[in-house]
Amino acid sequence: MKVLSQNTAFGGMQGVFSHDSLACKTEMTFAVYIPPQAITAPCPVVWYLSGLTCTHANVMEKGEYRRMAAELGLIIVCPDTSPRGNDIPDELTNWQMGKGAGFYLDATEAPWAENYQMYTYVTEELPAFVAQHFRVDMTRQGIFGHSMGGHGAMTIALKNPGRFKSCSAFAPIVEPSTADWSTGAFEKYLGGDKATWRQYDACALVKDGARFPGFLIDQGKADSFLETGLRPWLFEDAIKGTDIGLTLRMHERYDHSYYFISSFMDDHLKWHAERLG
Amino acid sequence: MKVLSQNTAFGGMQGVFSHDSLACKTEMTFAVYIPPQAITAPCPVVWYLSGLTCTHANVMEKGEYRRMAAELGLIIVCPDTSPRGNDIPDELTNWQMGKGAGFYLDATEAPWAENYQMYTYVTEELPAFVAQHFRVDMTRQGIFGHSMGGHGAMTIALKNPGRFKSCSAFAPIVEPSTADWSTGAFEKYLGGDKATWRQYDACALVKDGARFPGFLIDQGKADSFLETGLRPWLFEDAIKGTDIGLTLRMHERYDHSYYFISSFMDDHLKWHAERLG
Repeated sequence: MKVLSQNTAFGGMQGVFSHDSLACKTEMTFAVYIPPQAITAPCPVVWYLSGLTCTHANVMEKGEYRRMAAELGLIIVCPDTSPRGNDIPDELTNWQMGKGAGFYLDATEAPWAENYQMYTYVTEELPAFVAQHFRVDMTRQGIFGHSMGGHGAMTIALKNPGRFKSCSAFAPIVEPSTADWSTGAFEKYLGGDKATWRQYDACALVKDGARFPGFLIDQGKADSFLETGLRPWLFEDAIKGTDIGLTLRMHERYDHSYYFISSFMDDHLKWHAERLG
Repeated sequence: MKVLSQNTAFGGMQGVFSHDSLACKTEMTFAVYIPPQAITAPCPVVWYLSGLTCTHANVMEKGEYRRMAAELGLIIVCPDTSPRGNDIPDELTNWQMGKGAGFYLDATEAPWAENYQMYTYVTEELPAFVAQHFRVDMTRQGIFGHSMGGHGAMTIALKNPGRFKSCSAFAPIVEPSTADWSTGAFEKYLGGDKATWRQYDACALVKDGARFPGFLIDQGKADSFLETGLRPWLFEDAIKGTDIGLTLRMHERYDHSYYFISSFMDDHLKWHAERLG
């Protein structure tokens, strides 16, 4: 593990680290916030997955999660959104594909499959690495994210309900199989057989039987991606008749930015802390 | 006034605006956070002055001031640190001079004097502009800042004690006339006669009779600029025998970054709110 930076913050430590990823076959960077409570005992961990175009750094700089994480004793881990590096396939003029747009799936199609294994990276390799290097109570894990990362958090929770005790999302892409900004990437990463897309689609997963106790979703009504990209009402429909709980809060005037995320960050961290004990 | 961006945050509005500055003879950009309380009544304003290399944006993105400003009902205005634009004199390879390094003074020497009038801009032109365009109670003003901006806040408060009811600083340059990273700029902006430097030096101002009720200063002990650039003990010495109050808090492990600033932002905003009523 390379230590890229470490800064004291709110009595704890905000670090940025990198390591060689076997899943993505490249060096991956991630951020970890360690609250002061971790000095004396292992702490629960909440994974934050970021949205399109982001790296680990955006939420670290603008998400405003440290004050409450320090108060609640939560470790926050923020992975990158894709493999990085000059040798990694990319579409330079398309921000919805390639670098910054990994969609938290394991690609099966060339040339993407070689490195774009973000599902395996985020659910297996990085957790094992974090458990090895930090004082984490891996029996208490939550996951959340924004937009593409909200999609990542919800699909990962639905596929791994035994591992995660809590899940929440800011403006998630709840049905990427049909949203305007994700279908192109899904086709390139996963191929034309849409049956394979369902394992990375929260609405489809629920329809196919996946279950999770409950979700908190915050969504801005002034979010320019609401109608064609996000559409939380599709998830409301999908869970009808199931025992999946949903707290969906629609907020007047809020958009898709980090100003929205940071405004409701405290509520999300409390949501996780209540469920992580 | 040009509106560059407006985002809802914590029930209020974070905006970025620009206007033509007469003092700096160029377009200047600034950020304003309007708390939700401003909908019903004019709110007190706290001016935040940033440090070397920063624009209005750094603290807006990383300072984490909105949650508490919304709670306390404070308007926060964040000016740029210098004039900007292709026609503005600069020293491209020197981050301690020119753009991003205005030091909140009115330059008297060519070629700087033409545009580098940041003292007049921050104390006269911008306040008049803000008072005209926003719902501000100008009888209740506080000022704070970081590093070079802490220097700016303290010298401006000491020179305008009737106007500001509160002042605080994160890691301020308390004696720029003798600090390693500011003497070069002072000589270029103000010329070789060091008597003229004293009006922009918090320690010298106090020694020359300027007074202000009290300051809150937070300083990280792991700040790499502490010993040669910041030296808050010089200000402690300068106020001995005066009625100036000083709450100086030295923090183990904290550095000069925004992780330090954001960790103590709440305390500073409460300091101002208590004094602004």
